[in-house]
Amino acid sequence: MRAEIISVGTELLLGEIVDTNAAYLSQRLARLGVDVLYRVTVGDNLARLSEQIRQSMSRAEIVILCGGLGPTEDDLTREAIAEATGRRLISLPEIEQWLQEFFASRGRQITPNNLRQAQVPEGGRTLANEVGTAPGVALEVEGRLIVALPGPPSELHPMWERHAEAIVRDFTARAESGRSLYTRVLRLVDIGESQVANDLADLISAQTDPTIALYASPGEVKVRLATKASGPQEAARRFAPIEEEVRRRLGAHVYAVDDETMEQVVGRLLRERGATLAVAESCTGGLIGHRITNVPGASDYFLADYVTYSNEAKRDVLGVPEEILRTYGAVSQECARAMAEGARRRAKATYGLATTGIAGPTGGTPTKPVGTVFIAVADESRCVADGFCWPTERVVFKERVAQMAFSRLRKFILGEI
Amino acid sequence: MRAEIISVGTELLLGEIVDTNAAYLSQRLARLGVDVLYRVTVGDNLARLSEQIRQSMSRAEIVILCGGLGPTEDDLTREAIAEATGRRLISLPEIEQWLQEFFASRGRQITPNNLRQAQVPEGGRTLANEVGTAPGVALEVEGRLIVALPGPPSELHPMWERHAEAIVRDFTARAESGRSLYTRVLRLVDIGESQVANDLADLISAQTDPTIALYASPGEVKVRLATKASGPQEAARRFAPIEEEVRRRLGAHVYAVDDETMEQVVGRLLRERGATLAVAESCTGGLIGHRITNVPGASDYFLADYVTYSNEAKRDVLGVPEEILRTYGAVSQECARAMAEGARRRAKATYGLATTGIAGPTGGTPTKPVGTVFIAVADESRCVADGFCWPTERVVFKERVAQMAFSRLRKFILGEI
Repeated sequence: MRAEIISVGTELLLGEIVDTNAAYLSQRLARLGVDVLYRVTVGDNLARLSEQIRQSMSRAEIVILCGGLGPTEDDLTREAIAEATGRRLISLPEIEQWLQEFFASRGRQITPNNLRQAQVPEGGRTLANEVGTAPGVALEVEGRLIVALPGPPSELHPMWERHAEAIVRDFTARAESGRSLYTRVLRLVDIGESQVANDLADLISAQTDPTIALYASPGEVKVRLATKASGPQEAARRFAPIEEEVRRRLGAHVYAVDDETMEQVVGRLLRERGATLAVAESCTGGLIGHRITNVPGASDYFLADYVTYSNEAKRDVLGVPEEILRTYGAVSQECARAMAEGARRRAKATYGLATTGIAGPTGGTPTKPVGTVFIAVADESRCVADGFCWPTERVVFKERVAQMAFSRLRKFILGEI
Repeated sequence: MRAEIISVGTELLLGEIVDTNAAYLSQRLARLGVDVLYRVTVGDNLARLSEQIRQSMSRAEIVILCGGLGPTEDDLTREAIAEATGRRLISLPEIEQWLQEFFASRGRQITPNNLRQAQVPEGGRTLANEVGTAPGVALEVEGRLIVALPGPPSELHPMWERHAEAIVRDFTARAESGRSLYTRVLRLVDIGESQVANDLADLISAQTDPTIALYASPGEVKVRLATKASGPQEAARRFAPIEEEVRRRLGAHVYAVDDETMEQVVGRLLRERGATLAVAESCTGGLIGHRITNVPGASDYFLADYVTYSNEAKRDVLGVPEEILRTYGAVSQECARAMAEGARRRAKATYGLATTGIAGPTGGTPTKPVGTVFIAVADESRCVADGFCWPTERVVFKERVAQMAFSRLRKFILGEI
């Protein structure tokens, strides 16, 4: 089963925004076993957009559009689908009514343009938008499935997860006598792809059903199990024994499953223990705190992050001894240790986490080149500090250090280091 | 003049990475006056890639490829260009030699696959890669210009700026008797697009050369001046009077020109004054510190960022009086003020900057709904605090608050607030 993704919007072609929807939809389609062979971006132009829909329908069974569903004159996705498929646009009274109520509830006057959002190509249906006013559209025509989603990621993600994915899954299942692809992704850190490939070599070479595939992305390796099943329970039964075996071999590296992020995992571990966290950052400059606080409810366990960029701040707020700074320098295992302990003590937190390193491009020395970093984790009774060296671009370095810091904290909480 | 951008890589189609190159190249091409009507993403497949190059050549004068230039079997961009244009691949001895020296200098053995990177389609030339091993490719054929760039953004950006842009500019200039498009972008904050349109209405309606166009992107409005000229000096002469007039009307909102970012501007202002900065963040959770420290050399002016998420940390580190927290709450103008002053005092910094707000999705009250935020800036003699309300998604809220905090700091330093 093949799909194409068409991103719609002149603002994309002008480079004013980065298209994250295309990557999101690609991932979700891959997980359903749907191959994406082409993605195309087209501007707000009716002729080019409808022509593109026709070309994509000629190459793929599923065409997903994102963007161009809003109320302005520039929003042409509905019209383009109608033109490409030779269907009339018809207005759905229940959606018109919903739009009218939506505007009335906000004390705003509805305009004729807003009512265009109640239109679908004949034979199509709308997908509810719980975040904005533009409903999605789904239409089957000539054995092809066309799905149109709104452009803002905050609307597109929930619409995909609550409505569109089930429609795509149903479409693919009908083509395969009721079975569709289910996947389970184990996310590993602190291990390279080749090591995982080596440790799972016999499983990978003997795979039949479920299949096992490895994917490396920055800071992690994913082990993806996939099986065709008639429902999630049947899939889960097939995944269980193989997941158990993977975890038996590499369990210490598995930090999450499917979509859970590292900061969510760490937040969950802290919450489960009624524990709290204080951070002391130097080279990461606030990135660790930023990631922690991206998770709703972080204030339940996150107390403070002391971004002590200057030596004076390290002394003053964290109580790093002058002697350590003089003898070992701010970028040292000793300093990282004193920072983690200092942060924990200062905030009266269960755990302290610290980073100190040289992000570059300048500031390196022969013994401590650019890319040198020390990470420490402490609780009441112990403190673990380690050094790493990742000479790379400044922002990439910060991201890599933050990811490793989270990983060290996770292992420390679990008693693995 | 039209261009198409082809992003190459199966990892893109699997959604494993977000394609930021396409947005970057779109922006740079727009700045040269080149229209991008389509962008396409294709996997590592020779037939589909060469077919796509042919289609793009049939629709546009310029075809830019990114990705697929590396040394592995999957890297097929050179072969695909050769196949699409009917040219043989030939190996350039000077590039072979450079590759051999590159590997020798790192004590590594060069493989035959690595030597493939010395190949170009006959009639083409290579573009130097100062960061990695894969040279770029430029080829003119049948009145079309094809340029291939490496996929990693850290290699693509310098190659575009140092080599490819000049080639594209030269190609477009030849089509227009030696003239090509130059642009100058004024970046505005704290003002909406419609207000800018209103304030510049007469200039916009009377525009001939340079042209004036407005672009809104999150947190800012761009005023883009463009003119066709035979060189940068001629363009600068034409921009000068109109820029002067725009600045006369809206100068207080113009925070940067062309590519300079807000954190670079603020860093430059601090450095010029020999001043230092301390930050106190609550709802932004470290994002302000993260952005400040993305700029190389930030340690010259950035001392510390106290991310005081808990009330206790606000009291302890910043000395926010218990009375303020009890009477006004942590999300209040009074608390923001105490945080900015406390951060400044604690770090002995010239300036203190503070944010405190409710990022949501929970934690709002009838008087302080989700999205409420207070931002304060202080120096030795005064402190300015203001409240805003942006009810939106958690991470978007954090970004918007951080941008406004930088803007407030900039105006404070300049004596504008």
